[in-house]
Amino acid sequence: MKRVAVILSGCGVFDGAEIHESVLTLLALDRANARVVCAAPDVPQHHVVNHLTRQPVPGESRNVLVESARIARGNIVPLGQLAVADVDAVILPGGFGAAKNLCTFALAGPDFSVQPEVAHFLREAHRAGKPLGFICIAPAIAAKLFGAENVEFTIGTDANTAAGLTPGGGQHVNCTVHNCVVDRRLKIVTTPAYMLANRITEAEAGINKLVQAVLDLA
Amino acid sequence: MKRVAVILSGCGVFDGAEIHESVLTLLALDRANARVVCAAPDVPQHHVVNHLTRQPVPGESRNVLVESARIARGNIVPLGQLAVADVDAVILPGGFGAAKNLCTFALAGPDFSVQPEVAHFLREAHRAGKPLGFICIAPAIAAKLFGAENVEFTIGTDANTAAGLTPGGGQHVNCTVHNCVVDRRLKIVTTPAYMLANRITEAEAGINKLVQAVLDLA
Repeated sequence: MKRVAVILSGCGVFDGAEIHESVLTLLALDRANARVVCAAPDVPQHHVVNHLTRQPVPGESRNVLVESARIARGNIVPLGQLAVADVDAVILPGGFGAAKNLCTFALAGPDFSVQPEVAHFLREAHRAGKPLGFICIAPAIAAKLFGAENVEFTIGTDANTAAGLTPGGGQHVNCTVHNCVVDRRLKIVTTPAYMLANRITEAEAGINKLVQAVLDLA
Repeated sequence: MKRVAVILSGCGVFDGAEIHESVLTLLALDRANARVVCAAPDVPQHHVVNHLTRQPVPGESRNVLVESARIARGNIVPLGQLAVADVDAVILPGGFGAAKNLCTFALAGPDFSVQPEVAHFLREAHRAGKPLGFICIAPAIAAKLFGAENVEFTIGTDANTAAGLTPGGGQHVNCTVHNCVVDRRLKIVTTPAYMLANRITEAEAGINKLVQAVLDLA
């Protein structure tokens, strides 16, 4: 039974992990009889967005780990307490949380940085030869960490967004919502999901392919 | 194309709508090419539960509609503004939100009441002959509203919980997680999902059957 860490970034597309992508990832992993460990950094969210008005809520603060626990039904560990040795692969769903809480791409643009615990965990898993999957905008993190190794990745078909991710190296590959890009050399898999999806079944198609590719590489 | 209202109760199993059940419902409806309208009452949650510690958070307040909007990616309407005439069927996912925010079963026991907008919408849809689906603990609402019509329903196999739901009439039917109970006379469909599920694929099995049964009755 393969053990897969799913790293969440909160709970909700505008300030956390995209909920559909996260649940579809858990569903595909369970179908494949993988053992899932959900994890998230124990840090404050960049901000809280009212998902009805789509506006930030001044003065409100939420914690990435605590909100991620909603998606995980309470079964989650702080990322800092998860050992790379205890998992065979890692998958990061998207949502603005991936680009605001796990890295700062949505805020800082091309000069963004990756949250230190996330960077450390992913670099160590990569060095240990474990496959990594990144969904939606989360491939920004792969581009930043593995650009120097010339990683091939996709965030869909948005040339402007892609251009902001390759100054440090890496190759953006256009990809439809129904597919994923597999960099077999680096064992890194990416899929656009809600960067392109207009409905949940479209996101599901690419995520199912990503999960299968990650498990095949593990 | 059939139009289905999905009534949410927040965002997170311990104080809102169960996220997996909600997303699996949206997924099954999209697969069937139904048009989904998410809705929720614009009322405060009963309370906020930290999903990491599973303890209530003193002094924190969240709104059912605003938190439900996270699951709906912002595409949601206040239940009070949704017309029964605009939908062909209604489905309620579970989670403690269904038993704390949409009704008070988790708090008051057998003498519980149903939130007025929810009760009004469901009674009117029922009178109009539209099928209703209830997942997990949400069938408590069906038992309260339609017990006098002797509704057949399931919340799984928990005899104590079932006994608390039938003083006003209605018949509890034991049901496995992979199945659903269809009251064809009243067009009411129920499935246990996370009342029994140990993994997300188990919840999916029963929810897929419920969604298909609701659409067949619409």
